[in-house]
Amino acid sequence: MLDGAIVFSGDLTKARDEITKALADLERGALQRGVPEGEPGPRITGHGIRGEELSLSIESGKFVRAHEALLRLRKELSTLLGKAHRLGARSVRIDRYVIEFELDRPPLKDVKVPLASSLEFDGATALLELRDVPEDHLSRNYVDRLVALVREKVAAQYYEGKAGFFEAIWTSPPRTHGFDRDPTEEMAKRGWVEQGPGKGRWFHRPQSAAVLRAMQRIAVEEVLEPLGFSEVISATFVPFDIWLRTGHLQGVANEIYFVTTPATRDEAAWEGFKDIVKVTRQVPAEMLDGLLDPVRAGLAYAQCPNIYWSFTGKTLSDADLPIRVFDRTVVSFRNESGGRHGIERVDEFHRIEPVYIGTPEQLGELREGLIARYRHVFDEVLELEWRMAWVSPFYLQQAGKAGEGTDVEGPASGTGVGAGAGAGTGAGAGAGPGAGAAGAVGRVVPHPKRQGTIDFEAYLPYRGPRETSEWLEFQNLSVLGDIYTEAFNIKSQRAQLWSGCTGIGLERWAAVFLAQHGLEPEAWPAGFRRYLGELPKGYRFM
Amino acid sequence: MLDGAIVFSGDLTKARDEITKALADLERGALQRGVPEGEPGPRITGHGIRGEELSLSIESGKFVRAHEALLRLRKELSTLLGKAHRLGARSVRIDRYVIEFELDRPPLKDVKVPLASSLEFDGATALLELRDVPEDHLSRNYVDRLVALVREKVAAQYYEGKAGFFEAIWTSPPRTHGFDRDPTEEMAKRGWVEQGPGKGRWFHRPQSAAVLRAMQRIAVEEVLEPLGFSEVISATFVPFDIWLRTGHLQGVANEIYFVTTPATRDEAAWEGFKDIVKVTRQVPAEMLDGLLDPVRAGLAYAQCPNIYWSFTGKTLSDADLPIRVFDRTVVSFRNESGGRHGIERVDEFHRIEPVYIGTPEQLGELREGLIARYRHVFDEVLELEWRMAWVSPFYLQQAGKAGEGTDVEGPASGTGVGAGAGAGTGAGAGAGPGAGAAGAVGRVVPHPKRQGTIDFEAYLPYRGPRETSEWLEFQNLSVLGDIYTEAFNIKSQRAQLWSGCTGIGLERWAAVFLAQHGLEPEAWPAGFRRYLGELPKGYRFM
Repeated sequence: MLDGAIVFSGDLTKARDEITKALADLERGALQRGVPEGEPGPRITGHGIRGEELSLSIESGKFVRAHEALLRLRKELSTLLGKAHRLGARSVRIDRYVIEFELDRPPLKDVKVPLASSLEFDGATALLELRDVPEDHLSRNYVDRLVALVREKVAAQYYEGKAGFFEAIWTSPPRTHGFDRDPTEEMAKRGWVEQGPGKGRWFHRPQSAAVLRAMQRIAVEEVLEPLGFSEVISATFVPFDIWLRTGHLQGVANEIYFVTTPATRDEAAWEGFKDIVKVTRQVPAEMLDGLLDPVRAGLAYAQCPNIYWSFTGKTLSDADLPIRVFDRTVVSFRNESGGRHGIERVDEFHRIEPVYIGTPEQLGELREGLIARYRHVFDEVLELEWRMAWVSPFYLQQAGKAGEGTDVEGPASGTGVGAGAGAGTGAGAGAGPGAGAAGAVGRVVPHPKRQGTIDFEAYLPYRGPRETSEWLEFQNLSVLGDIYTEAFNIKSQRAQLWSGCTGIGLERWAAVFLAQHGLEPEAWPAGFRRYLGELPKGYRFM
Repeated sequence: MLDGAIVFSGDLTKARDEITKALADLERGALQRGVPEGEPGPRITGHGIRGEELSLSIESGKFVRAHEALLRLRKELSTLLGKAHRLGARSVRIDRYVIEFELDRPPLKDVKVPLASSLEFDGATALLELRDVPEDHLSRNYVDRLVALVREKVAAQYYEGKAGFFEAIWTSPPRTHGFDRDPTEEMAKRGWVEQGPGKGRWFHRPQSAAVLRAMQRIAVEEVLEPLGFSEVISATFVPFDIWLRTGHLQGVANEIYFVTTPATRDEAAWEGFKDIVKVTRQVPAEMLDGLLDPVRAGLAYAQCPNIYWSFTGKTLSDADLPIRVFDRTVVSFRNESGGRHGIERVDEFHRIEPVYIGTPEQLGELREGLIARYRHVFDEVLELEWRMAWVSPFYLQQAGKAGEGTDVEGPASGTGVGAGAGAGTGAGAGAGPGAGAAGAVGRVVPHPKRQGTIDFEAYLPYRGPRETSEWLEFQNLSVLGDIYTEAFNIKSQRAQLWSGCTGIGLERWAAVFLAQHGLEPEAWPAGFRRYLGELPKGYRFM
């Protein structure tokens, strides 16, 4: 139920009868657009004229909400009264708007949403009340998004705290491991790495750098080049407008590293600041605040948003599909806070991000190829004990189709290794060897058009027995439907375009490899040593 | 002249005579420490006692300033009166302090410094007046730094706007160039690069990425590996305390990209922010401000500060010297603002940063080796027209020894390619071919113990005739004495340690190469094509 008004450019009194008649006509005409035969449309339950103002009370229909009806009335009456009386609608106003809608299930606890004056529930019926709604909130579609937000929050109450979806695909045979310590602690002890600067990052001395670089070469030469991927170089800096399209600001704002730049580069403006630093050797925070622009960007959480951005509004040639590119230059940043651990869960880390765009069939085939190459690397080059499973955050299951994100939900799953102890990792504890039968590659391959994310997890001997300990997600692989091709308006000449990515975290690969094989190069598999060459001896501290 | 007081823990009246006598003794005793024979020491020109307070007037001597004398008096009197009367000094206070000191030359215009109540000049004599100076400003040495700042600012007035020091070393013979356009414009036209996201950065599609990657391989395989450099992986995030040591905050704060992280990662704290973003698809700036920590870090301006940090307080083994490491993972950021141009002067770019630490003799030898390898690459692999010169910002010359930075001055020169149109580039305009005779490598090598920076500049045909156009600084090479080994307290077992760096900017190498050779792979030198392989065909847009 909506109480509001349309404000015109002049006195409406002279047009009173025409308006009354027009409202009755419009209720049967324009307001019925989009209403299926036999369903109720929106209804005008009252109106009044005072001076320039036409006040209205409108009841929503199931298919056309009251605020949409109000905007239609504004348009139609403006045309009508413009011709007859040279009167135009200047603005609309909503004094009070109560939106009633049905949920799948009643809320389990309180729900809060912004901009609403109240939100109440009667079983599974929600009553959302707005007061004094500015006109631009209507034209910008805030009302529908508020309704979606209420639905999202109630649905979230049902999966809160539950493990994510986990469908085991394949588990490698168990291996014997000659090492059972936390590899990062051992690397720090040997001087291969130094923690810092600041929390959540490591300085990799030559030995550790050589291991990470070997992992990068293996990924590029054993996985990406054989499948026809080309390197691109993307930016580490991500403006907010790109993350608004991908949903990262909605989804992971609390994990982002934010960036700001000087409001001016002018030396004179900065002289006082620099002088204070020179004299005090301290940074005057208040002065600095005044010299910086507002925060409007952050650092890559994953590389894919800027890669998609580079295709914005482009029409791809069918002959070039599927597009296969990867970036290995951008550095990734996440505010991991309390979740930090070792080299494998940190604030600053190094990923290769392969991104692919093509028809659903092409991406199904590419996924098959990627899984085959990963299997080759994990089984024969790195000789790991690992497993593979379909995973999906619960909200994606709620949406009915695993892997289909909605743009209200935040970033789709699978934007990369390092998403942390996500659904897959946590849920995998109960699915040890045997949960998925070791099988031929043929069994592994999903339906070509299936969307979603596959997690690759590895056993970490230092965490305890393989059957009960938590394995580490060290790789994933996603086909994400059309959410990003739509968000960035990427088209092909004819085909429907999907996209996906399969972020390769170098620190994750190294952490898993070292946890299973230890730090003595003699014990490392020949396939890996071929890429490593000689382990650098580094330098000693006295 | 200083007027101030020492405040004691009790009434001083009973000790009046002892204090008067002690002051006379101390003037001849403790205050004379550090004063050479025959030179005047500081003088106590008056004192008075009221209650707990001993007020003092002190004249500075040439070698011991009045505030230093005041701190000595505090210490000595505290000991004396502690024993005799159980009275201790609680605090000191400076009501007014006029510091007189001589400059090399009188100022050319007004000078402002912080914390001073006035600053006046009588010819080359400076009169700096401070009032109500907090005690910690004395103990933290602000006074001496203020004097140094006045000296620096007056000296700067003499070199402001003048070209830097430029001493040509060598110029390659002229070459014939088949291309005379701006290579970035041509790359953009062909779709090799896309400008963005945001200002000062580029998305490099496969063709351009392959060129940059080839440059990286040439630098590593032709320059660094033959000279025994090992790779390390450093952080892109730089906390302020590291930049306070290197002088970057004092020197280039206006060019820094600053970083801030969430004050909390807690979902509940961020729910309101995320909800607003979900509904409005806009970022509520005021809400965001409240959720972020104060800015206390930035992004790498050059890699060397974090590399030096990794050696903080360490004692190196003589057997490992010279330390030779390089980072090629960190992404560099500079707020170039109005100075941006093409791919070669941008806000986000890619450098290899080789850093070396060793004895002066070892670094002299290493510089010789680096110059020889660079000559090989520029002459025989990239086939460039280029030249080499000693450069030094004027303030370093003022300091008497080119290349020796002082920690008040800001970062030493040579912290990397991309320092922009610095001294070298601008000053080079008048020093065309012939300014430095083409000569054997023997001629090129400087005295092994010479500190300073060598710039490598290349001719850009699209800018006009080689004799009159501005060449681009595309490489430099610095030996920086002990400023960084001192700043980070890096020691060896016996030897004196110097350090240096020679940042290799991939975009600079590519810009110079493409400006001279154009964009057709057939026209590229064989030495480069061997590293490039096949130029990727990229993808087309319809």
